[in-house]
Amino acid sequence: MTKYVYFFGGGKAEADKTMKETLGGKGANLAEMTNIGIPVPPGFTIGTQVCDEYYKNDRKYTKEILKQIDENIAKLEKTSKMKLGDSKNPLLVSVRSGAAVSMPGMMDTVLNLGLNETTLKAIIKKTKNERFAWDSYRRFIQMFGDVVMNVPHHDFEAILSQIKTKYKAKEDNDLKIKHLQEVVKEYKKLYKQVTGENFPTNPREQLQKSIDAVFGSWNNSRAIKYREINDIKGLIGTAVNVQTMVFGNMGATSGTGVCFTRDPSTGKNVFYGEYLMNAQGEDVVAGIRTPSPIATLKKQMPKAYKELEAIRHKLEKHYTDTQDLEFTIQEKVLYILQTRTGKRTAQAAVKIAVDMVKEKLISKETAVMRVEPNQLDQLLHPTFDPKAKKAVVAKGLPASPGAATGKVVFTADEAEEWVARGEQVILVRTETSPEDIGGMNVAKGILTSRGGMTSHAAVVARGMGTCCVAGCGELRIDYAKKEFRTKKVTVKQGEYISIDGSLGEIYLGQIKTIKAELSGAFGQLMKWADEFRRMGVRTNADTPHDAKVAIGFGAEGIGLTRTEHMFFEGDRITAVREMILSEDVESRVKALYKIKPMQRGDFEGIFEAMNGLPVTIRLLDPPLHEFLPHDDEAIEELALKINRHPQRVKEKLESLKEFNPMLGHRGCRLGVSYPEIYDMQVEAIMEAACKMHNKGIKVLPEIMIPLVGVRKELTILKDRAVKICDRILDEMKADGLTYMVGTMIEIPRAALTADEVAKDAEFFSFGTNDLTQMAFGYSRDDAGVFLADYIKAGVLENDPFQVLDQEGVGILVEMAIKKGRSTRENLKVGICGEHGGEPKSVEFCHRVGMNYVSCSPYRVPIAKLAAAQAALKDKIKTPVKKVTAKKKVVPKKKAKTKSRSK
Amino acid sequence: MTKYVYFFGGGKAEADKTMKETLGGKGANLAEMTNIGIPVPPGFTIGTQVCDEYYKNDRKYTKEILKQIDENIAKLEKTSKMKLGDSKNPLLVSVRSGAAVSMPGMMDTVLNLGLNETTLKAIIKKTKNERFAWDSYRRFIQMFGDVVMNVPHHDFEAILSQIKTKYKAKEDNDLKIKHLQEVVKEYKKLYKQVTGENFPTNPREQLQKSIDAVFGSWNNSRAIKYREINDIKGLIGTAVNVQTMVFGNMGATSGTGVCFTRDPSTGKNVFYGEYLMNAQGEDVVAGIRTPSPIATLKKQMPKAYKELEAIRHKLEKHYTDTQDLEFTIQEKVLYILQTRTGKRTAQAAVKIAVDMVKEKLISKETAVMRVEPNQLDQLLHPTFDPKAKKAVVAKGLPASPGAATGKVVFTADEAEEWVARGEQVILVRTETSPEDIGGMNVAKGILTSRGGMTSHAAVVARGMGTCCVAGCGELRIDYAKKEFRTKKVTVKQGEYISIDGSLGEIYLGQIKTIKAELSGAFGQLMKWADEFRRMGVRTNADTPHDAKVAIGFGAEGIGLTRTEHMFFEGDRITAVREMILSEDVESRVKALYKIKPMQRGDFEGIFEAMNGLPVTIRLLDPPLHEFLPHDDEAIEELALKINRHPQRVKEKLESLKEFNPMLGHRGCRLGVSYPEIYDMQVEAIMEAACKMHNKGIKVLPEIMIPLVGVRKELTILKDRAVKICDRILDEMKADGLTYMVGTMIEIPRAALTADEVAKDAEFFSFGTNDLTQMAFGYSRDDAGVFLADYIKAGVLENDPFQVLDQEGVGILVEMAIKKGRSTRENLKVGICGEHGGEPKSVEFCHRVGMNYVSCSPYRVPIAKLAAAQAALKDKIKTPVKKVTAKKKVVPKKKAKTKSRSK
Repeated sequence: MTKYVYFFGGGKAEADKTMKETLGGKGANLAEMTNIGIPVPPGFTIGTQVCDEYYKNDRKYTKEILKQIDENIAKLEKTSKMKLGDSKNPLLVSVRSGAAVSMPGMMDTVLNLGLNETTLKAIIKKTKNERFAWDSYRRFIQMFGDVVMNVPHHDFEAILSQIKTKYKAKEDNDLKIKHLQEVVKEYKKLYKQVTGENFPTNPREQLQKSIDAVFGSWNNSRAIKYREINDIKGLIGTAVNVQTMVFGNMGATSGTGVCFTRDPSTGKNVFYGEYLMNAQGEDVVAGIRTPSPIATLKKQMPKAYKELEAIRHKLEKHYTDTQDLEFTIQEKVLYILQTRTGKRTAQAAVKIAVDMVKEKLISKETAVMRVEPNQLDQLLHPTFDPKAKKAVVAKGLPASPGAATGKVVFTADEAEEWVARGEQVILVRTETSPEDIGGMNVAKGILTSRGGMTSHAAVVARGMGTCCVAGCGELRIDYAKKEFRTKKVTVKQGEYISIDGSLGEIYLGQIKTIKAELSGAFGQLMKWADEFRRMGVRTNADTPHDAKVAIGFGAEGIGLTRTEHMFFEGDRITAVREMILSEDVESRVKALYKIKPMQRGDFEGIFEAMNGLPVTIRLLDPPLHEFLPHDDEAIEELALKINRHPQRVKEKLESLKEFNPMLGHRGCRLGVSYPEIYDMQVEAIMEAACKMHNKGIKVLPEIMIPLVGVRKELTILKDRAVKICDRILDEMKADGLTYMVGTMIEIPRAALTADEVAKDAEFFSFGTNDLTQMAFGYSRDDAGVFLADYIKAGVLENDPFQVLDQEGVGILVEMAIKKGRSTRENLKVGICGEHGGEPKSVEFCHRVGMNYVSCSPYRVPIAKLAAAQAALKDKIKTPVKKVTAKKKVVPKKKAKTKSRSK
Repeated sequence: MTKYVYFFGGGKAEADKTMKETLGGKGANLAEMTNIGIPVPPGFTIGTQVCDEYYKNDRKYTKEILKQIDENIAKLEKTSKMKLGDSKNPLLVSVRSGAAVSMPGMMDTVLNLGLNETTLKAIIKKTKNERFAWDSYRRFIQMFGDVVMNVPHHDFEAILSQIKTKYKAKEDNDLKIKHLQEVVKEYKKLYKQVTGENFPTNPREQLQKSIDAVFGSWNNSRAIKYREINDIKGLIGTAVNVQTMVFGNMGATSGTGVCFTRDPSTGKNVFYGEYLMNAQGEDVVAGIRTPSPIATLKKQMPKAYKELEAIRHKLEKHYTDTQDLEFTIQEKVLYILQTRTGKRTAQAAVKIAVDMVKEKLISKETAVMRVEPNQLDQLLHPTFDPKAKKAVVAKGLPASPGAATGKVVFTADEAEEWVARGEQVILVRTETSPEDIGGMNVAKGILTSRGGMTSHAAVVARGMGTCCVAGCGELRIDYAKKEFRTKKVTVKQGEYISIDGSLGEIYLGQIKTIKAELSGAFGQLMKWADEFRRMGVRTNADTPHDAKVAIGFGAEGIGLTRTEHMFFEGDRITAVREMILSEDVESRVKALYKIKPMQRGDFEGIFEAMNGLPVTIRLLDPPLHEFLPHDDEAIEELALKINRHPQRVKEKLESLKEFNPMLGHRGCRLGVSYPEIYDMQVEAIMEAACKMHNKGIKVLPEIMIPLVGVRKELTILKDRAVKICDRILDEMKADGLTYMVGTMIEIPRAALTADEVAKDAEFFSFGTNDLTQMAFGYSRDDAGVFLADYIKAGVLENDPFQVLDQEGVGILVEMAIKKGRSTRENLKVGICGEHGGEPKSVEFCHRVGMNYVSCSPYRVPIAKLAAAQAALKDKIKTPVKKVTAKKKVVPKKKAKTKSRSK
């Protein structure tokens, strides 16, 4: 018999924390906490498999499932010594969702379930707190109506608001019993009006409908969108947790709160959290009332605080990671309702990992595995220039670190629209809700006027690595007028503001940002990563300046220098254009030799910056028309400059036009057609290399010929290059200077025939951008039209231009490496497409035996960390727990090819 | 010791016909003929390896080579009982080239070598024919000067012409001895003037310089171009044949001729050839005098004719193939100077192959192997409509069959230029020469005023399958005025004429052509091909009309119906455009349902035509903008028609523009974005299928989803299609009608993941055009700029769009078939790219285990023959001799995958 439902309570549970797939994260942790003696109200978890079967079975349950639920209700009634619907000692429960991966705010919750006219009376009698009873009842109706029956939330709020106004109550707590009774009456009326039914009085029916609603919410659009954005896949569904109610709203000695065992923003080892007295849990999370910091509780309820502190340490030691807790104090008695791995900022993730090693809680390996490489991006984000003039116009909570500048928009939809047309926006909301997830994802920053550090806005923004200032109380937002006011200013939609998510400050206008500094815990973590990883990490840099920046980020060489980017600088473009427009070889050569000294100069700078590190330089790649002007005025200006008739220039331009430039006359095809271009570039590279070498700088030039599809292309061009290099080496007497000539593997045919290509190529560098374009037949410039739809429809798991397509393109990469090394055993292999800085892709590169990855300077630390994790996975072989939801950790196959030294 | 030189003579030779690679075709056959007792003047062959070493050794010879040459000269002197340079009995020799593959007119020849003042006197004395001696001497000087020393040919001709005029001689033969002496004097003067040296008198020096010249001619531009055009590769060089001279110009009882053992034009088993009395061989081939038909020789020299007839039969029996002979009669004594496999028209090739089976000379298998599939193209060429009005303005020799219409041009260069800008031309020349090869290759037809059936123009045109009328004596060509006159008309450059190469007739203007009829020997050969081949041959056809044509050509189904080609017919395009410009799904569906009845009608016609045969229909493939107008006027007209604002239409057009349409929003990507389009098409297909099925027609529809790169695309679209099909099958009660849903494999990723794709695809059809584009990263529309250069530079062997790239793209194809069948064992696999009609590619398709190929209707017989040959190669496994030079036959590996029934 399949076990569908798992009980916890009375110091024992039928499951434990390892069973997240079966019970969801919340359920597994409730069981675990029960087992280790944490005060958890008893209950049971309906497993995720029920959700799966529910959907497969056309939203129905099998008899066996219903039987197991009933059995567990009976067990819960026995353990709690209360009964659902009982007129004396009624059992009230909460119904909560909980998938294997935490999805805050995405799933729906019902509290106080079990209340009806009968049990209400019993509660009044039992608690002697009539106000509490009525407040609980109205909350239940509202939550049940909203979540289970889709009665509009704001209609309930409107009734509450109306009655508060009517009786001049400022806050909910100001409402008297009779007012609450009026609220209940109006709520029930609303309920009947919308649903056509009376509010259900049978607790078992209430429970069943709620369970249905939780399972139903698994596939609501918010949940789907959250999974989409957070790249959560492969889950079979959510579990449902039915748990005995404890009440934080039972009066002055009751309360509820959320806390982290360490500061999730900075990572400091301090107890961190917020609570509200006389409130239910949802009040804290929803951000309707601004809660008090956890430290206050020490004075307010010392005993409960002490207990909580003890639990904090116990849990952290038990889980060996920072926990995010929910607690409720019911009339001075502390209950823990949830524990889970605490989400944290990148800064916190790094600090916590490093601190825990020092505290001997975890190993260096675990620390390195703990930080999601992509999360480092947050640390590498720029901050505001401290020298920039900034006028603080308002202050809120520093909810998610970083600095952002953008135009103000007031709705998530607008945020998405504006960003789609190329704007950078700051999303400004009173508070955010799961419906806003799309807009939050694209905004540069998020600013809210209500809610605390654990409000929806704050939690989600930190998860996304988006800068956020929350709970800026003085902000008055007027959605109708599309403006907000602070004490000092009025800001309209479309005006620029800047926000600092580390300080919680808001400024007017655009503010200059500067790069992050990388030291302390970050530096330590990187050192450990360097110990463990086996792949090299290089960078893509086109100028001496970029090269220096990359060194700062720890780059171990340059994997890609695009020579053509240099062509656009300053006056050079005129010489380049003159070269392209040449009518014969002689004049082309003449123009090329105007460009050569400039190229040589750049190379000298790069070699100097990379002293001792290898530098891969790619010869001209893009089609020639990319360098030419296209409007009449610019054409005429150019014609004048290079002393040619505008009509001739236009004709040449016309002749260079291509139907599919991506598949046209570019890369080594240009090299074959106009060998003088590559000749000049090779001369410039080698002259620069020799000059620097003779100055005592260690130069390791790697000349890379792009877009090879047929070995013979490389044979021809390599022969020319080698002749030139050897001549210059000889002429400049650069003894001991060595160089390599290799190729990009970016044409599928080159991968398919890599054994042939490797006969000439001394190294391979995978150009996975082009390889992806051609393997998929997607033009990167055009695929936007359908790619988003494809990901939404599940045709593709990821944008293959962002995450390397291991199943398809990966086959080509693996094949090319294998074939290449079958010919040339020591073939040096790297990647210089943008995938080189994407963690999953980096792991793939490690697995297939690449020697290095190369990525943009800002992603070098990410690539290093990802490379270290890939190497550790090889070692560990067993599943490793990960901090965030973004990555499901599955045991990896051991790398098939031995990794080689860089 | 390497053997470099091979002797033949005295009834014995040091080689035989199997040694073509070593001795060249001519040398191997001279040896063979010597061995079987054919009267061949003795001589020796300097092997092809010498040519190779000559080039590798900087155009020098090793001592060993020179030694072997000298030894063979001595042997020849001994056998012939004559001596080089001897003052009594001087040895005169011919020096001829001869590679392993025959290249008529490409290589250079020197005759009468050995003449000088001394030997001339000896010859006069010996032959008592002073005129002959002087004529031979002047020929030798001219040939040696031209071929060996590059003295311009026309300068020699000018001297000859001048002296003829001076002494009122009509033909060369009218020149008297003293005139010839004057010619010799002037020739020597010219020689000294141009070369700066006296004409060499030492025969050994003459011989050495001639040998050098033959080797030198191996890499002259004409030879290179011939090899390029005829796709001749892998040869190491030419051999040199040095042979005792025999003289056809020794007076009235001497002559020389060229003949075929069967008619090379019709294939009839009749002796066929031409000869000239009192002439040397070159006179016949060059077409300077118009020769007599071979039959005349029977009366003129009955004994020689009888001998020749006997040799004809002996050689044909010995070689079991039609031979092309050169003979010389020297004072009534017959000598054979050459035999080789006779080039023939496609018609002749087929007839000879079939006849030889009947004559029990060869097997059916050999007959099928004998005909070059590509050659069939000639038979499938159209002929003139017999009903068309044609006024014959002149008549020439029917030199190469077929019918052609084009604009008159008078030089080969003009032919190339005009064709390059899109014209069809007829090349009109007095006579052609190897220099004209480029122009001849692009001309639709060739017309000459001089030369016979074996003239350069005729031989080359037949080889090329180009229609040719030769020796049209009444044609007066005025190159200066760029016109030609016949008795009736004057035709200027650029005016249209038509020529019939089967009748030798010339007409004014353009004439309508009709298709070839395929019966008789052709039908028989095709039957045998059908017996042997294992692959099916389908056709690509888009309309009921095409389908019917294809059936006529023996197609066994349709491998590709492009539904979008139907979109352009008549008024449909307006509805299609309306569909594309729809702003929402509803209006798109409305427009689609205007198109549906038209599509359904087409499908009905196609199904009816293909009764009992499978029909693969591809759903919409090209990007939508291909269907829209692009100039302002057409846009406004369209806007008016579909009642929309021109500005909106323009905006939509703009939004559909793509940077790389080949890699853009097309194929199944459109199907995913706008499922209603595919829905409509599937409905139209299935409704048509059901209707025809219910009428008693056997319908086998195969719905093909294009451009799949990711399995999920197919999953989604197949599910929709299957639902629609099943609904219609049910609605229309078409019991017993089955259908398939499959996909094109044209995206590299689909090939790489074919095991996944095959989970949904019931068949694969390789779209090798796109697969080639993406595997190479070549846009077919743009690659022209560099592809020709690439082939010339040897980067690529062939245009990969014409001949499937087996080394690269082939890997993808083979992998896809293997992976596909690993998932779905009985996966039906075909090809519908243009490679499906290209013989080498067809052979590849067989080898990798495809079930069928599909090609244009006109190439169906070619594909069938190629498929049969591929199957026979599996069986035979040993090298098989081939008729033409175009294909080097190499033993093939046995197919790795078992072939499956169609």
